Amino acid sequence: MKLLEQLCEIHAPSGNEQNMTKFMLGYINQHKNTWKQPPKVLHGNAFQDCILLVFGTPRSAIFAHMDSVGFTVRYGRQLVKIGGPDIANGYRLVGEDAQGRIECSLVYNEAEEQLQYINEREIDRGTELVFKCDFRETDETVQSCYLDNRLGVWSALQVAETLEHGIIAFSCWEEHGGGSVSFLSRYIYEQYGVTQGLISDITWVTEGVQAGRGVAISLRDSLIPRRAYVQRIIRIAQESGIPFQLEVEGAGGSDAKELQRSHYPWDWCFVGAPEDNVHTPDEIVHKRDIESMVALYKVLMQKL
Amino acid sequence: MKLLEQLCEIHAPSGNEQNMTKFMLGYINQHKNTWKQPPKVLHGNAFQDCILLVFGTPRSAIFAHMDSVGFTVRYGRQLVKIGGPDIANGYRLVGEDAQGRIECSLVYNEAEEQLQYINEREIDRGTELVFKCDFRETDETVQSCYLDNRLGVWSALQVAETLEHGIIAFSCWEEHGGGSVSFLSRYIYEQYGVTQGLISDITWVTEGVQAGRGVAISLRDSLIPRRAYVQRIIRIAQESGIPFQLEVEGAGGSDAKELQRSHYPWDWCFVGAPEDNVHTPDEIVHKRDIESMVALYKVLMQKL
Amino acid sequence: MKLLEQLCEIHAPSGNEQNMTKFMLGYINQHKNTWKQPPKVLHGNAFQDCILLVFGTPRSAIFAHMDSVGFTVRYGRQLVKIGGPDIANGYRLVGEDAQGRIECSLVYNEAEEQLQYINEREIDRGTELVFKCDFRETDETVQSCYLDNRLGVWSALQVAETLEHGIIAFSCWEEHGGGSVSFLSRYIYEQYGVTQGLISDITWVTEGVQAGRGVAISLRDSLIPRRAYVQRIIRIAQESGIPFQLEVEGAGGSDAKELQRSHYPWDWCFVGAPEDNVHTPDEIVHKRDIESMVALYKVLMQKL
Repeated sequence: MKLLEQLCEIHAPSGNEQNMTKFMLGYINQHKNTWKQPPKVLHGNAFQDCILLVFGTPRSAIFAHMDSVGFTVRYGRQLVKIGGPDIANGYRLVGEDAQGRIECSLVYNEAEEQLQYINEREIDRGTELVFKCDFRETDETVQSCYLDNRLGVWSALQVAETLEHGIIAFSCWEEHGGGSVSFLSRYIYEQYGVTQGLISDITWVTEGVQAGRGVAISLRDSLIPRRAYVQRIIRIAQESGIPFQLEVEGAGGSDAKELQRSHYPWDWCFVGAPEDNVHTPDEIVHKRDIESMVALYKVLMQKL
Repeated sequence: MKLLEQLCEIHAPSGNEQNMTKFMLGYINQHKNTWKQPPKVLHGNAFQDCILLVFGTPRSAIFAHMDSVGFTVRYGRQLVKIGGPDIANGYRLVGEDAQGRIECSLVYNEAEEQLQYINEREIDRGTELVFKCDFRETDETVQSCYLDNRLGVWSALQVAETLEHGIIAFSCWEEHGGGSVSFLSRYIYEQYGVTQGLISDITWVTEGVQAGRGVAISLRDSLIPRRAYVQRIIRIAQESGIPFQLEVEGAGGSDAKELQRSHYPWDWCFVGAPEDNVHTPDEIVHKRDIESMVALYKVLMQKL
Repeated sequence: MKLLEQLCEIHAPSGNEQNMTKFMLGYINQHKNTWKQPPKVLHGNAFQDCILLVFGTPRSAIFAHMDSVGFTVRYGRQLVKIGGPDIANGYRLVGEDAQGRIECSLVYNEAEEQLQYINEREIDRGTELVFKCDFRETDETVQSCYLDNRLGVWSALQVAETLEHGIIAFSCWEEHGGGSVSFLSRYIYEQYGVTQGLISDITWVTEGVQAGRGVAISLRDSLIPRRAYVQRIIRIAQESGIPFQLEVEGAGGSDAKELQRSHYPWDWCFVGAPEDNVHTPDEIVHKRDIESMVALYKVLMQKL
């Protein structure tokens, strides 16, 4: 899980995914020739900070977002959220401004409802701070900030190794309003006619979806995917023998929002391992759920 | 109103409109040759569960959504809303899971803020439940669940009988976040250059819009249509002599949201009969308002 | 500032921008031949009430919205908001209905949470009312309703005088849900391949952005623009020597929302003077900030 640890340590809050893009392009170019089917790698201005991998003759596309939640320095010592990070006094935050590297602490002033940082010096206006990575691994679990969604990215990279036909899209801004899947979905539709989407992202451990019981297939979150498509996915999962759990939520969202609202007739389904301690520095995922996530994606990309 | 009753009884909550699609295709194929101008019927994968009827050389398009509000079974006996159904203890709900047909009751536990069902057995996770249909008709009114929007669909089918030039789009997901008018509006624009939209849907009886006084033409809801377009529609309505009422609201929405946000320059106007007991099993509409709705649509599709 | 005063007096609430469109087309056609590079002027049905000016070979586009906040007359004496106008008893409102010109007063009934007007006669349902313009100018400031965004429009018209390559888009509906930048951004992308956007709009005086200290460049509001693009803009601003301030907010939005969610890979940055008394009849802006706004736009349109 060395690669996962490297991914979790990269500074890439929504809107500033450049470091992830660089790392990913380095990794992909270094490894793609060892993959079963080396993909076409699309990136650059027309894709902003996103990356598309196109394998063979694609019928389906995986979307894995590269960005994370975090904080923007406002005025004085104030912080503004990027996405929906958990808030607790003492969380360690890291970043960099014109004066150099920063490591500081988060404070929440409940009376004034103000998020602030504590640091020996003032930090430049607009600087982004993210959770400091403390990567922990046991026989059964991995734990770190940003498993959501570096684990979804990592899983997609495992799938890439043997993928013959399909697209993997590494997207931006998912944690903060979206904005890249919109143009990626148009490009994919126009160039390849693909409308079958899979969202490679991390969900929540709840009373109905438990750690260690397998990857979650979501029947709905705040949005509802087309039933006919999700039923096909469930049938494939049942036939595969891979452990999985059905999720039903009334809240939450993902890159799928942009597929649902697209001018192109995309279907989508969220398929991802559940984590506990969501959006904290201590996100934790069971290794069995990671295994079934990678395994199920391999089958789905063949059978869909 | 036998057709309306049949439509109200069909299980088609947002995201799972397949039954409506099948019924509608059956009805359309059975009747279209008796219509003044048999339309081109577009459906299938590229349209998901939607249907487009294209008559002659279209200048305007009617959008009528086929889906309804309802509930999804979560974990244990919990329910999650599909769209915004009204909630009251004892509402009868129906559906089907792997173990067979279901008829059960809704309960709202106020203390725990939990929606639940009461049924002799546990229902499969992810099963959709909808209101049980109790269709009632008097000389003056029709009453049932899901007049919103089976009546808008029914009205469009009446208009279809004599329509010479125009498009009728039967859409999905309107009650829960939308998602189909986006791709329908692109397709219609690209293939036919049409940008004049009419929303065939049901609105609310209020202090300003009363039952029996005629179809409502909406000047705004949560969104504001382009004034110049709505004024043309009002002028046509005035000249027609058909009774109508002007509606002005600050809330509510429809398939028009997706036209408003479209990448194509669509105009839109909501034109529909008002109902009382919105989103309950007892939605009620005055027959005079249904008559004026059908009559006004016929004129608008000729004059716009 | 005679032109700015004329712009502030025009009745053009969101959805009914026709008067602005007419005035602007008159102004542009009268003056464009005195400009360094007379632009192509695009308008008419395919652009709804929007106007596009295309200069030379464009690389970037300025978006300036022409609409304003206001009120719609509902039933009886009730008012519904258009966008987010400030509310205070006694604000003077103007409009026109079938019975003639209207000047009336705003009342807010706190107990009933109802917005109403006081007028000698009842006003036609659906009539739009806007703040009455009281334009005030000192050596240092301008003050009026609707500086947001008639000043953004005015600034773009100053930039037009010397612009050689670029697009200026005058948009609609910004104050109330948006809806025009979506189709403008598609058209611009498809016809000219442009994806660099600048939002010419007015922001807020806050503890971090003060009147008289220069135009604001926003690092974020409720949405976060792509960091790499904003950094290029800041570097150009730094090299120009023009005074500017960096803004960081967690709320607010602009026409940029539609660029962010576009099916085309648009970058965007909000660049605009700050005002105090936002969305009141007394919006006030420092003239030094207006000067630096126009100056910075001229440089950005050359260097981006």
